[in-house]
Amino acid sequence: MANATGNVLIGQSGGPTAVINQSLIGIVEQAVANPAMGRVFGAVHGVRGILDDDLIDLGAESRETLEAVANTPCAALRSVRKKPTRGEGEKVLAAFERHDIRYFFYIGGNDSAETAHLLNELAVEKGYDVKLFHVPKTIDNDLRVTDHCPGYGSAARFVAQAFMGDNQDNRSLPGIKVDVVMGRNAGWLTASSALARQFSDDGPHLIYMPERDFDLERFAGDVDRVYSDLGRCLIAVSEGIHGPGGELIFKTDEVDSHGNAQLSGSGALGDFLAGAIKQRLGSSLRVRADTFGYLQRSFAGLVSEVDAAEAREVGRTAVRVATDGEHQHGTVVIRRTSQEPYEVAYEVAALSDVAKNTRDLPEEFLLGDNDVSPAFLDYALPLVGKLPRMGRLTDRSIG
Amino acid sequence: MANATGNVLIGQSGGPTAVINQSLIGIVEQAVANPAMGRVFGAVHGVRGILDDDLIDLGAESRETLEAVANTPCAALRSVRKKPTRGEGEKVLAAFERHDIRYFFYIGGNDSAETAHLLNELAVEKGYDVKLFHVPKTIDNDLRVTDHCPGYGSAARFVAQAFMGDNQDNRSLPGIKVDVVMGRNAGWLTASSALARQFSDDGPHLIYMPERDFDLERFAGDVDRVYSDLGRCLIAVSEGIHGPGGELIFKTDEVDSHGNAQLSGSGALGDFLAGAIKQRLGSSLRVRADTFGYLQRSFAGLVSEVDAAEAREVGRTAVRVATDGEHQHGTVVIRRTSQEPYEVAYEVAALSDVAKNTRDLPEEFLLGDNDVSPAFLDYALPLVGKLPRMGRLTDRSIG
Repeated sequence: MANATGNVLIGQSGGPTAVINQSLIGIVEQAVANPAMGRVFGAVHGVRGILDDDLIDLGAESRETLEAVANTPCAALRSVRKKPTRGEGEKVLAAFERHDIRYFFYIGGNDSAETAHLLNELAVEKGYDVKLFHVPKTIDNDLRVTDHCPGYGSAARFVAQAFMGDNQDNRSLPGIKVDVVMGRNAGWLTASSALARQFSDDGPHLIYMPERDFDLERFAGDVDRVYSDLGRCLIAVSEGIHGPGGELIFKTDEVDSHGNAQLSGSGALGDFLAGAIKQRLGSSLRVRADTFGYLQRSFAGLVSEVDAAEAREVGRTAVRVATDGEHQHGTVVIRRTSQEPYEVAYEVAALSDVAKNTRDLPEEFLLGDNDVSPAFLDYALPLVGKLPRMGRLTDRSIG
Repeated sequence: MANATGNVLIGQSGGPTAVINQSLIGIVEQAVANPAMGRVFGAVHGVRGILDDDLIDLGAESRETLEAVANTPCAALRSVRKKPTRGEGEKVLAAFERHDIRYFFYIGGNDSAETAHLLNELAVEKGYDVKLFHVPKTIDNDLRVTDHCPGYGSAARFVAQAFMGDNQDNRSLPGIKVDVVMGRNAGWLTASSALARQFSDDGPHLIYMPERDFDLERFAGDVDRVYSDLGRCLIAVSEGIHGPGGELIFKTDEVDSHGNAQLSGSGALGDFLAGAIKQRLGSSLRVRADTFGYLQRSFAGLVSEVDAAEAREVGRTAVRVATDGEHQHGTVVIRRTSQEPYEVAYEVAALSDVAKNTRDLPEEFLLGDNDVSPAFLDYALPLVGKLPRMGRLTDRSIG
């Protein structure tokens, strides 16, 4: 440690993903091996742990524990939804100074990038030398600049397998089924439901994403058309659907310190939509709603292998760029360098480029008002990995 | 087919499971190979297909299709929730006669056993010679006589992995979380949430099953106690919880022709319980609810290997006993012949023994009002198979 220029601190923030610990362990293993880096600490519950001086010694963890943690969903360091005030930012910097933290890695979504950005501006202002890196994760896949976000592939895989099964369920016992998928601002995760389709009449038959304004009457008309045609209808709906003015179709009153409304952890939107269908198309119809909820981001034992490997590599890359002499701060982004075979490169972007704002599905990935395009499927499939194949009887007549 | 004594008809009925098609294919492969059996037909949507003469030729399916179907969740023949009236039962028998059906296999739960029982009584009365067998499936695991039911192990595996992940989620972002699990009459599936625990403070911390009367005030008190102790609380609740008079805590108005109320396909119970907690313990608490819904019974690409193998074998066994000269009708039951190593035998029981009534969790599998016993875990673990191991940081102080 003779050459170490300071200690390392890592935090996790925002909603969990199935592979967020891969990034954590990627950082730890790379930092422990880096002679420029001193001790490797973890902040329990992100910035809250820094403010409360609740730090743990990650360098003391065994190889075996680190590997087990890498394969465990959600934040092993525990997470937080907190945007520090300026006063809190100053306390964070004071803690950095106290523990000689010269490298800070914050694993999270766009809100976490914003926190890193804020801390960086404060550090520059105070003349405290610390390298600040955001390490991306989000099942929403709505960070800007990057081709895709670690965490998305595994959540998309869960959603695709869930719809694959629910399509069989809906075919077994026909009716109208609404499945509500996570995604506050953008429809990336809801769009992945389309990966479930294998036969021409497979659902989801309708996919509603926040990129299009939602209208209840048009929705009921769409459902009626599919149901009349197929005798069943499977629908994917993003929790973030909203009317033309941007007002959410359904929400609770709760907001976090970033100003985000609570959408998940309630079945209310699905039940509301199921009720709206019955009201418009007939109360004797078999209409059901499921809200996939936290299972999408936390389910144990189901990951996309590509996603897990990339999440690890994004963590390792952050440590490498933090000591390459070129970067003082930034976020790691993934660039798709080849589609066939699928290949990626890891690069650095500015914190300000990913902070705060989110990225919608581009127009080319949408099809009409309620579907995704083949281009989206090409984009998403390599991130999710090989999906199970569904079998179907040929239904030959007995003659 | 010179010796064939008649044709075979197979139907699937009731709620889907992840392995109900294993039983279907087990019957088909065994029936096709059995010289006493003629052609092998499938009824589309169970008894409804028989009434509508919607039969398909299962003997004409390729080996490859059958294998793919076996590994596909939900009813490949499509299902139905229908209790035939006496008049309909007579029409079913007329269809049997028309197609020379001498073997009928009905894959389903206790309602399907009841249908088979009803058809058998009618056949005896009319003097029509047909061998009628019920082939068990239910994620609820609430059939009588049998040690456990095909379909349960896979659903229990889903529930265990879901709680394993949600426990990590709840630890990452602490709060109170209610997860509603299927199980109309009995708590078998909800109980399997306990398989998720690996560390001493792991959730689910409270498990509510229909075997115990549910009381909202006591519930709120339990939650308050755990939350005060751990700073978080993960709760498993059966959709079938009810008060001391048997009245459900929450339900919709819909009922099927067996008189069962609609419980699933709505997030209402979870939202109701989350609201009740906030109301009693404080509206500023972070309380969330998820309802696992149809994912528990249909999720694609996630089965218990033991469950899949047993579901196949139960189907094969039904065909064997139908031609052993000893049995005219019955249901296949599983007997656990050894716990360590886990071994089972397949036997025949009377239709009347499993029809209609269900089986609760026995007292020895319950612990107090809101937990399961170690004996339950010993019972359930071999059915679910090896579960993923969760890693955890040792949280060593930085000294």
